Amino acid sequence: SSSPATITTTLFPGDGIGPEIAESVKQIFKASEVPIEWEEHYVGDQIDPRTQSFLTWESLESVRRNRVGLKGPMATPIGKGHRSLNLTLRKELNLYANVRPCYSLPGYKTRYDDVNLITIRENTEGEYSGLEHQVVRGVVESLKIITRHASLRVAEYAFHYAKAHGRERVSAIHKANIMQKTDGLFLKSCREVAEKYPEIVYEEVVIDNCCMMLVKNPALFDVLVMPNLYGDIISDLCAGLVGGLGLTPSCNIGEGGIALAEAVHGSAPDIAGKNLANPTALLLSSVTMLRHLELHEKADQIQNAILKTIAEGKYRTADLGGSASTTDFTKAICDHL
Amino acid sequence: SSSPATITTTLFPGDGIGPEIAESVKQIFKASEVPIEWEEHYVGDQIDPRTQSFLTWESLESVRRNRVGLKGPMATPIGKGHRSLNLTLRKELNLYANVRPCYSLPGYKTRYDDVNLITIRENTEGEYSGLEHQVVRGVVESLKIITRHASLRVAEYAFHYAKAHGRERVSAIHKANIMQKTDGLFLKSCREVAEKYPEIVYEEVVIDNCCMMLVKNPALFDVLVMPNLYGDIISDLCAGLVGGLGLTPSCNIGEGGIALAEAVHGSAPDIAGKNLANPTALLLSSVTMLRHLELHEKADQIQNAILKTIAEGKYRTADLGGSASTTDFTKAICDHL
Ligand SMILES: CC(C)[C@H](C(=O)O)[C@@H](O)C(=O)O
Ligand SMILES: CC(C)[C@H](C(=O)O)[C@@H](O)C(=O)O
Repeated sequence: SSSPATITTTLFPGDGIGPEIAESVKQIFKASEVPIEWEEHYVGDQIDPRTQSFLTWESLESVRRNRVGLKGPMATPIGKGHRSLNLTLRKELNLYANVRPCYSLPGYKTRYDDVNLITIRENTEGEYSGLEHQVVRGVVESLKIITRHASLRVAEYAFHYAKAHGRERVSAIHKANIMQKTDGLFLKSCREVAEKYPEIVYEEVVIDNCCMMLVKNPALFDVLVMPNLYGDIISDLCAGLVGGLGLTPSCNIGEGGIALAEAVHGSAPDIAGKNLANPTALLLSSVTMLRHLELHEKADQIQNAILKTIAEGKYRTADLGGSASTTDFTKAICDHL
Repeated sequence: SSSPATITTTLFPGDGIGPEIAESVKQIFKASEVPIEWEEHYVGDQIDPRTQSFLTWESLESVRRNRVGLKGPMATPIGKGHRSLNLTLRKELNLYANVRPCYSLPGYKTRYDDVNLITIRENTEGEYSGLEHQVVRGVVESLKIITRHASLRVAEYAFHYAKAHGRERVSAIHKANIMQKTDGLFLKSCREVAEKYPEIVYEEVVIDNCCMMLVKNPALFDVLVMPNLYGDIISDLCAGLVGGLGLTPSCNIGEGGIALAEAVHGSAPDIAGKNLANPTALLLSSVTMLRHLELHEKADQIQNAILKTIAEGKYRTADLGGSASTTDFTKAICDHL
């Protein structure tokens, strides 16, 4: 068989435990013979004027060129005069949809064993506009911006995703009973897209009710699509149902098919460099990246090996109640490939 | 012993199942000899120009005069030109804090058995300003307003409540990492009040993280205070942890010590008039009203009777998996008084 072409992929190992968990991904990809070559970029130690942040221009150019990347946790350095690294990436790369698959991990017990849903978050506008000001002393306001353009774009992505992945239902999450114009426009856009997908059930759920239903019976949901802040809240809530941000993958989709997969947990500086970190979130994120590249066989192989290793329970890191090191866990996954 | 003075209290039975569950409260209060006389008000069938809603001016005057009320579910009639009944009540009566105690009901199994928290929601501003407009076609914006006045007021209420009820910790929930000015002002106000209560632990938790922690381990929280929309979301989430809005009480606090307790679930028109409704949320709300009136003995007696009846499980309504009628359940509670 002919060997497939190598795909160049940007890798941001990130800070804290980032380099260790990135190393885990690299080893597993190597063991699985994934045809990927990494182009590694670290966060700079000074502000790059072209990005107004500690992200270097070269690293952004790398993602733009490769159209695909994987990112570990990045701690935004404290201080004024620069933007959050995560928000800079979203903005500069126009990463308009944040996709988080969230499913119960076989053998890892939480209060829920029936979670299998996808949250799709609008990632560029809404409450994250950055437009705020003081009206008079003691009175401040923030602007939430909703556009038809961004709403249609993320709705289109959600329905496309649902169809491509054999999902049956898309729920648009909103508070249009209060924010009739902004969330109303979001819903209107979703409805317009829904009409093009008659095979997908479309429903609208008010965010407060959605959160109540999620904690009572998450099996009621399939694909959820929503404005920025609701997505921020609900994606973390859903991660909590299956064990937390250390176990759940995330992938950001940009215009022109850019995909930046990322672990959304913190950089855990307290355990950095100690070979204790759990690489699962970054590993499962790398699997979503492989699926984006249509490398489904490799994705299945690696995902199965991760899930099997966790299910067996012999090699679990401390956050999951085990005593395995990052490298023990990684080796166990490699053995399951 | 001298009989205590009678307290006149406004009662809004509300729509749908409202009258039946209000009847349950009335019977139990009678059996417990609570020194309360009800002043009943129904929602009108036409818009009262003085309230711009279906609420009558007389009913608002009744709460203003009595300073205390109990409210069943009110379905806002569909159509234009009037305001939501709930929002009208909050606005007209300046109900600035919504207090929702949320605890696991002994004997009623959910996925959680360790919930015991209080959500305190700012109830008058934030994302509920009603200020929205279209900037250009396809671009709309909503204003979120945070004031120092309303933030201090609700923070003060939260700390006062925590102290009065022997609670140890107040968590302010926010997204000030994104909305630095609005949520930042909210936090600044909370910090100012926290300084006056050195015996209460004060912490700040980002809303996404809060939701994740709540579903993983709600025992981490005690009293939570937050801006309007976060309170809307988190109070429903917390209700979901212990069984839903049919089981959780709510009380709104207004300037000058007004208290309007309410069941926050819907009016369930499908089962209205069938003697099937579960009155628990309204009953437990009436208990919070009694506590507001400092009738703690009556409050304890009634609360214990409700909890015992649910715990025994012999008389449960259909929503809790039983087959008792509203009146069976009510009678069982009376027998436990
Ligand atoms: C760190 C923070 C700015 C970010 C957000 O709010 O989007 C985070 O919560 C996330 O979900 O990626
Ligand atoms: C019905 C709706 C306007 C209301 C709100 O959003 O406040 C409800 O969800 C509540 O919590 O009382």
